Amino acid sequence: MGNMQISINECQERKTKPSTDGIAFGRNFTDHMFIADYTEGIGWHDHRIVPYEPITLDPSAIIFHYGQTVFEGLKAYRAKDGAIRLFRPEENFRRMNESCDRLCMPQINEADALEALRTLIKVDREWVPEAEGTSLYIRPYMIATEPHLGVAPSLMYKFIIILSPVGMYYKEGIAPVKILVENEYVRAVAGGTGAAKTAGNYAASLKAQAVAEKMGYSQVLWLDGVEKKYVEEVGSMNVFFKIDGEVVTPALNGSILGGITRKSIIEMLKSWGVSVTERRITMEEIKTAQQEGRLDEAFGTGTAAVISPIGEFSWKGDSFTIHGGKAGELSTKLYEELTDLQTGVKEDTFGWVTEIREEAVVRN
Amino acid sequence: MGNMQISINECQERKTKPSTDGIAFGRNFTDHMFIADYTEGIGWHDHRIVPYEPITLDPSAIIFHYGQTVFEGLKAYRAKDGAIRLFRPEENFRRMNESCDRLCMPQINEADALEALRTLIKVDREWVPEAEGTSLYIRPYMIATEPHLGVAPSLMYKFIIILSPVGMYYKEGIAPVKILVENEYVRAVAGGTGAAKTAGNYAASLKAQAVAEKMGYSQVLWLDGVEKKYVEEVGSMNVFFKIDGEVVTPALNGSILGGITRKSIIEMLKSWGVSVTERRITMEEIKTAQQEGRLDEAFGTGTAAVISPIGEFSWKGDSFTIHGGKAGELSTKLYEELTDLQTGVKEDTFGWVTEIREEAVVRN
Repeated sequence: MGNMQISINECQERKTKPSTDGIAFGRNFTDHMFIADYTEGIGWHDHRIVPYEPITLDPSAIIFHYGQTVFEGLKAYRAKDGAIRLFRPEENFRRMNESCDRLCMPQINEADALEALRTLIKVDREWVPEAEGTSLYIRPYMIATEPHLGVAPSLMYKFIIILSPVGMYYKEGIAPVKILVENEYVRAVAGGTGAAKTAGNYAASLKAQAVAEKMGYSQVLWLDGVEKKYVEEVGSMNVFFKIDGEVVTPALNGSILGGITRKSIIEMLKSWGVSVTERRITMEEIKTAQQEGRLDEAFGTGTAAVISPIGEFSWKGDSFTIHGGKAGELSTKLYEELTDLQTGVKEDTFGWVTEIREEAVVRN
Repeated sequence: MGNMQISINECQERKTKPSTDGIAFGRNFTDHMFIADYTEGIGWHDHRIVPYEPITLDPSAIIFHYGQTVFEGLKAYRAKDGAIRLFRPEENFRRMNESCDRLCMPQINEADALEALRTLIKVDREWVPEAEGTSLYIRPYMIATEPHLGVAPSLMYKFIIILSPVGMYYKEGIAPVKILVENEYVRAVAGGTGAAKTAGNYAASLKAQAVAEKMGYSQVLWLDGVEKKYVEEVGSMNVFFKIDGEVVTPALNGSILGGITRKSIIEMLKSWGVSVTERRITMEEIKTAQQEGRLDEAFGTGTAAVISPIGEFSWKGDSFTIHGGKAGELSTKLYEELTDLQTGVKEDTFGWVTEIREEAVVRN
């Protein structure tokens, strides 16, 4: 990108917007999408906003065979005053470039990507829902499009942004989840792609998730792939524990995704004067702390749920309850503070939010 | 599938066939492709042979985001008598179903898939090249097509077969490759997806491959992801060593792809009375055997090259030559015997080849 010119082809007729009450996640899309094409030797070109429409690819396109793809996920919120608020979007595009590096994909111009997103949201601004707890989910992604059955980096890519209105995650206050600690399947290992937001990590997780659901658990906790001792992630969220009054989360080790909600939670806790440690933590330590009454809370963090309290762990056939199976005070406070900041109910003292107003973009 | 009816829509005009002399791998495709659609609750439907044409998918299709996809690779050879010979195709469809299981994708009917392939090859029979060393590369694959931004198995899939004429792999007799032993990046770990033929494994391999190429090596040797001691695969091939007159290959451990060429080589060696052991083998053992003059040969096995002799390893900064950097006797004999069997120069005493003749399919 760089000196990007975006052509805008608005659709003739707008779709009927679904009610956000009870809307399923990721099944409804707005009227438009952003696309840019990359050709090796030329760079990014043909930046355009077009009606949301199917993508046409050669059957030999590298994405179908060798999985060269990365994605991001973030949300736009509608504030009470009508402004649209983006939460740390520059962090997503920075991470996207890190993922691209691991997957041998071209870098995007992060400022251009943010400008493309802002322009797209302005075109589809009526799709940012207003009801409490709703938002517009944003999915930037890049796919390898070169028609070539060869295990080599593609010479052609598409960078795409699509938008999906999403409803309230928690209907009746944040609800704890039951988590199965996974002992057979592995999500990622150091030296692999676990720290990148790429399709293969998610494909690899489906089998364990299916087993967990059959057993009545909503997500799995991933242990490290080497010793199967150390806590890595929960489902597709980062995970935090409150032990002896301190907050602990697994250190980023090369196989854990560096979540932007994770990063924000750490910064928020520190701003409150709460001790937060990023380190290796074993499942044994969690269990012992629970048995000794020192494990007060556990919660996952991610874009979809923001904070997901953990009410129960099952590990090697034993299950144990956390905080009486209820959402803890810290989880609840973090959820409220972060969503209030995201939606503009409270002032953004961190400088995390970028606002989009009808004709201007204002940086807080 | 099951009781499959294939509709055939032949293209009006056939493409000009490229010369197979110097043709690039995986860049030319035949006139037609096979497609079947899967819908949860209905199963496989609309089995069809259509002109080779682009695939159209919703931008939210699961393949683009969560990588649910598997593929296979095999070859059709033209025998001197004009018959078209497929090498163990039923093994590919069996393995495809194993990959599908790991990726939470629906099973195919293996007999129907083979019938679909035979029908497609009959329609495009003129594309199976005749020159020595050439073949028609066959790529069956399955992709998740449901429009849904959710980390859950897709409810819709496409099973596709495309065909690509390929030239001679070795122009002047089989040539040894230089291999870099990879110490930083990891291809797969037990509990992951290494034993499945799925896109994410290949995406994960690109970075190490790029580093190796910059250093003048043609492929990497992958070590296990846990201790980084044990040999797993070479590039996208299985690997064999001849030490003290015995042949050794890494045992299938859950992170190594069970190659069909690997399996055939083991069976062929056993039929010759050569001792073959499938076991764990460390890189240290390989190096020691080389230093003591006990490592006679090393070679990779796979569909593309069939046999790829290894002339040099570089490991932790030291490099050492194998068999004087030349193809060994065993590698050469295996290559010749297997390709002679595949192309019908020698009798197929193993029952591995399925023939396709103009109007009938004959099982040897």
